Amino acid sequence: MTVRVGVIGAGMIGTEHIRRLTHVLNGAAVVAVTDVDPARAAEVAAGVPGARVLATGKDVIADDAVDAVVVTSWGPTHEEYVLASVAAGKPVFCEKPLATTREACRRILDAEEAAGRRFVMVGFMRRYDASYRALKAALAEGGLGAPLMVHCAHRNATVPSLYTSDMAINDTSVHEIDIVRWLLDEEIVAARVLRPRRNSRAAPHLVDPLVVMLEMAGGALVDVEVSVNIGYGYDIRCEVVAEGGTAALAEAGGVVVRSGGRWGGAVPADWRERFLRAYDVELQDWVDAVAGGTTTGPTAWDGYAATVVADACLEALRTGERVGVSLGERPALYGLVAS
Amino acid sequence: MTVRVGVIGAGMIGTEHIRRLTHVLNGAAVVAVTDVDPARAAEVAAGVPGARVLATGKDVIADDAVDAVVVTSWGPTHEEYVLASVAAGKPVFCEKPLATTREACRRILDAEEAAGRRFVMVGFMRRYDASYRALKAALAEGGLGAPLMVHCAHRNATVPSLYTSDMAINDTSVHEIDIVRWLLDEEIVAARVLRPRRNSRAAPHLVDPLVVMLEMAGGALVDVEVSVNIGYGYDIRCEVVAEGGTAALAEAGGVVVRSGGRWGGAVPADWRERFLRAYDVELQDWVDAVAGGTTTGPTAWDGYAATVVADACLEALRTGERVGVSLGERPALYGLVAS
Amino acid sequence: MTVRVGVIGAGMIGTEHIRRLTHVLNGAAVVAVTDVDPARAAEVAAGVPGARVLATGKDVIADDAVDAVVVTSWGPTHEEYVLASVAAGKPVFCEKPLATTREACRRILDAEEAAGRRFVMVGFMRRYDASYRALKAALAEGGLGAPLMVHCAHRNATVPSLYTSDMAINDTSVHEIDIVRWLLDEEIVAARVLRPRRNSRAAPHLVDPLVVMLEMAGGALVDVEVSVNIGYGYDIRCEVVAEGGTAALAEAGGVVVRSGGRWGGAVPADWRERFLRAYDVELQDWVDAVAGGTTTGPTAWDGYAATVVADACLEALRTGERVGVSLGERPALYGLVAS
Amino acid sequence: MTVRVGVIGAGMIGTEHIRRLTHVLNGAAVVAVTDVDPARAAEVAAGVPGARVLATGKDVIADDAVDAVVVTSWGPTHEEYVLASVAAGKPVFCEKPLATTREACRRILDAEEAAGRRFVMVGFMRRYDASYRALKAALAEGGLGAPLMVHCAHRNATVPSLYTSDMAINDTSVHEIDIVRWLLDEEIVAARVLRPRRNSRAAPHLVDPLVVMLEMAGGALVDVEVSVNIGYGYDIRCEVVAEGGTAALAEAGGVVVRSGGRWGGAVPADWRERFLRAYDVELQDWVDAVAGGTTTGPTAWDGYAATVVADACLEALRTGERVGVSLGERPALYGLVAS
Repeated sequence: MTVRVGVIGAGMIGTEHIRRLTHVLNGAAVVAVTDVDPARAAEVAAGVPGARVLATGKDVIADDAVDAVVVTSWGPTHEEYVLASVAAGKPVFCEKPLATTREACRRILDAEEAAGRRFVMVGFMRRYDASYRALKAALAEGGLGAPLMVHCAHRNATVPSLYTSDMAINDTSVHEIDIVRWLLDEEIVAARVLRPRRNSRAAPHLVDPLVVMLEMAGGALVDVEVSVNIGYGYDIRCEVVAEGGTAALAEAGGVVVRSGGRWGGAVPADWRERFLRAYDVELQDWVDAVAGGTTTGPTAWDGYAATVVADACLEALRTGERVGVSLGERPALYGLVAS
Repeated sequence: MTVRVGVIGAGMIGTEHIRRLTHVLNGAAVVAVTDVDPARAAEVAAGVPGARVLATGKDVIADDAVDAVVVTSWGPTHEEYVLASVAAGKPVFCEKPLATTREACRRILDAEEAAGRRFVMVGFMRRYDASYRALKAALAEGGLGAPLMVHCAHRNATVPSLYTSDMAINDTSVHEIDIVRWLLDEEIVAARVLRPRRNSRAAPHLVDPLVVMLEMAGGALVDVEVSVNIGYGYDIRCEVVAEGGTAALAEAGGVVVRSGGRWGGAVPADWRERFLRAYDVELQDWVDAVAGGTTTGPTAWDGYAATVVADACLEALRTGERVGVSLGERPALYGLVAS
Repeated sequence: MTVRVGVIGAGMIGTEHIRRLTHVLNGAAVVAVTDVDPARAAEVAAGVPGARVLATGKDVIADDAVDAVVVTSWGPTHEEYVLASVAAGKPVFCEKPLATTREACRRILDAEEAAGRRFVMVGFMRRYDASYRALKAALAEGGLGAPLMVHCAHRNATVPSLYTSDMAINDTSVHEIDIVRWLLDEEIVAARVLRPRRNSRAAPHLVDPLVVMLEMAGGALVDVEVSVNIGYGYDIRCEVVAEGGTAALAEAGGVVVRSGGRWGGAVPADWRERFLRAYDVELQDWVDAVAGGTTTGPTAWDGYAATVVADACLEALRTGERVGVSLGERPALYGLVAS
Repeated sequence: MTVRVGVIGAGMIGTEHIRRLTHVLNGAAVVAVTDVDPARAAEVAAGVPGARVLATGKDVIADDAVDAVVVTSWGPTHEEYVLASVAAGKPVFCEKPLATTREACRRILDAEEAAGRRFVMVGFMRRYDASYRALKAALAEGGLGAPLMVHCAHRNATVPSLYTSDMAINDTSVHEIDIVRWLLDEEIVAARVLRPRRNSRAAPHLVDPLVVMLEMAGGALVDVEVSVNIGYGYDIRCEVVAEGGTAALAEAGGVVVRSGGRWGGAVPADWRERFLRAYDVELQDWVDAVAGGTTTGPTAWDGYAATVVADACLEALRTGERVGVSLGERPALYGLVAS
């Protein structure tokens, strides 16, 4: 059975998901596309046999030919489309953020609870990266004992001029916020943001680098170096320090070259190169679940937690203080953190 | 457009390709299955919506609902099915070997030449492995200069009791025979097989390990260590030594663990773990080419060359001597070695 | 010319230095030994041709046959022997700590200033480790830009039962306190100590692990993970994150083994294995300088700074707060941080 | 007790050993120096307090103030000085080669046998390299089983214009010839030399690269890639493939740098950088043994074996054939291969 997908938002990531659903994944077809710019929607849909352009996101969700919805529109619009999908009883894959405010996320949780089941998957694609999966598996084997610390680094070669320090939290660190919850299967209870010496290559308005310190419910301490002008490449590192050993992401790249007095490998140029495959696996997992009538992946609760923790980090960035995080009780619907 | 595939041979690899075409790849559907054991064919087809069981390979090839053929039957039957596919003007993906004798391979080359176009792709999946691709790309950049030597190792943790020394050439080394032709874009002109000290863990009838030495047309020298009872895992290594540097496959595995006095990573357990993804990419490439009306991947010439070189290696294993390889002229149809 | 050395304190490290001066290094001879336990001094001296046992440290320093002094006695006695050596105009190598209080260190600085020259070298042996030297050299090349952060880990497989949390600062972190001053050529201006989840393998009285955060004068931020019951080995890690790249200590161990499903190397068992050679190089550097009539290595100022910063860390550990560090002005005698 | 050393030959390596004995090692003093160029001897001796210049090597050996002899003169003169040292009953450290012909080596063996004890240590310094020692230790642990193959590479960035293909055997491969005997504790019984494609950067008269294949007495097979114009650095690699796993030299260099799209480490520039420390350890081992009245290190038999195997390799290089090696019986004096 082919899952008929409607896509809301045909920007960069939306177009990329349409390509993926059409040419890479198994069992899905894009049948409807909309965008705030109708011309753009038309252009994208023209390349997909059988895809129609609809006027609005609501139209997409309401369309009988649409089995499931992909939301890749501008962040502030996510709440509306996700809620409408839940109301329509249609599975929805929502790119991060689930919604831009705590309250909006809460309304989505409430809607799912009222419906009595999950409809939402949030696009935290790192959970589908083979290396992170191997890392979680290494911890799950149990020989290392309980995790006590996580050392992360999130490094970008460079960022566009419109990138802000808030984006260093909301768009960059948010990946680590989600992944440490998933790796340790625990919530985050407090955040702090430290400011090292500034990188002289950063735009004047940016706090770069910064260090996000997260405290987990069980006491584990997470440090996340965020460097967004480090020049040498896109480098994602993560080491979990447990009671009796550590497990860490290995160097990426399948080849070691010896040349010009050096041995070594290549660092990915950007997040596409590093996580392209994770996006494929993630969306295939969603398509397979939808086809099977089930739900999978990061939940609305995960999206809610990410937004709440990111808010705390923003406050910590502004104040320089430790900021507590209070999520409230997790509805039974969402079971454990890790899905 | 969905490519409708008929599969001849529903053994282990055939079943695996049927699963892949049905559940993993994009744009293909298995519509017909046959096997020397009809019950087995029926069982496998039962799990694939829309797939019919046909009595013989010929029936599959002749079926109007079949756009393209996958040959995964017993090696000695490959020639017949490949020739029939070419005669029917249908693209055919043939698992290695293309055919089991030089003469049989020649007949396939002649058939394609007579037809004036390629129909055949041979399943040398390593060419689709990300690490080997990065290795070829590193050489193609040109900074390392011309390749002079290739050091390979092909190590299996263990082999079944029916594994023979001939299989160490025909089924094991054949992967390196193909991959060095592809990496260096040159033919092999001579072979030698050396016998190191025997591994006491090997079955008494086995020559294990052995070292295959291959001479390339341009003079480059290849050494291939074949160890099939090395216990520690499935380990495929390849280092190309060029005039000004080297490029080599890196360690596999995305995680480094520090535990019990050691740091390091995991070695794949077997070829499935190591090359699973390469099979996906390979067959998707074939499906995409078929859908686009073109041909891709390793050619019948590549299959012919592999069989002829393997024969030379077998003679070298028996005699202990250097054995020359003469392929004859490559038909224009097949262009360069690397496709 | 052989440097005639008198050793005050024949405990573990003192005996080790006597062995080193006698059997490993070039150009030195141990001519006098003393210890708070005369029997122990006698036993140690008996193994060194030409070494006499003297009653007290003062006797050693005063002895005409002693050119230079090594102080390896109990920490609280260091001040007395170092001051006496300075007063006697004799070069003195003092194991860390230089002295146990800020005031005591100050008196030593004052004594050297009054004398108008350096006599003291403090035993921060990591500055003589080949890997740390390569790390400093990589930074000095300049291509990486200014250092912004340093990520350190100091991991012990286990510690004796009498080890305390204060020792995690005074004896363990003190090495990182010195090495980051040396690597970045800057003073430390503030400290904070964070407490991750406790390692259940640690003794009940211990805060283990802990994270020491240090702020450098130029704004660089240092994090030091201190884990003293991590079981897997003695592992010292350090990565300097600069504006355009990073440099980090590589894996130790000269051999990679592939066995039992894993590839990797050995982690040192303890600090002796990891830094044995650095001790040799360090003390040889001292002997050579003494023979040449000059001074070298970590200065009394370095010892003073380490003690003052460690005091701040202890306060930070107790209070959970950020604690500022004020060293006062560095006397001209001590030039730059890095000696 | 200080070992009083006389040095015969004050060329590059001789001067280096004099520096080492004088300024680096413990327990030795250079008391006499000679050279075929008296002015050079005088110049070198002038920098060593207490060293006299003597007219000839015979004078050095005969001198009462000389306890032990270091032979660093031109290879063809080694036999004479080693024999004279043995005749004088003085320990002698002889740089490789022990002697330039099989017959000359034999005469030295006969002299030691006649004397009933060892006097000679041959300068195969790799046995003192920490990484090679760790490699041998990994094999000795036994978990890997019996060695079956050894893959070696000996790569030089470049060689002087007077370097010849014979030197690729006598001066370059000779290190591997010795080290595999030591690692596997077995003699070499046959050699073959293969010629890969030529490196276009090599001088026209050179066979570069070449591959030396050695067969060990127990059947293990050794391949040695010798590349002497590879540009990227001085790279010595060795992997021992055993029945149940492998052990290999790890990457050298203590630091990993991430910069300009790459991660990795430095390759040593030349043999000095790579093996400087091994020379120190080697000669200290000799000095300690001499001081203790014993003998240590690579024996005259090892020197003999190296010369005989190198001769076989030279013949194999000329003829392209497999050449057997016959050492005759090893005198009891020399015990096992590994000393």
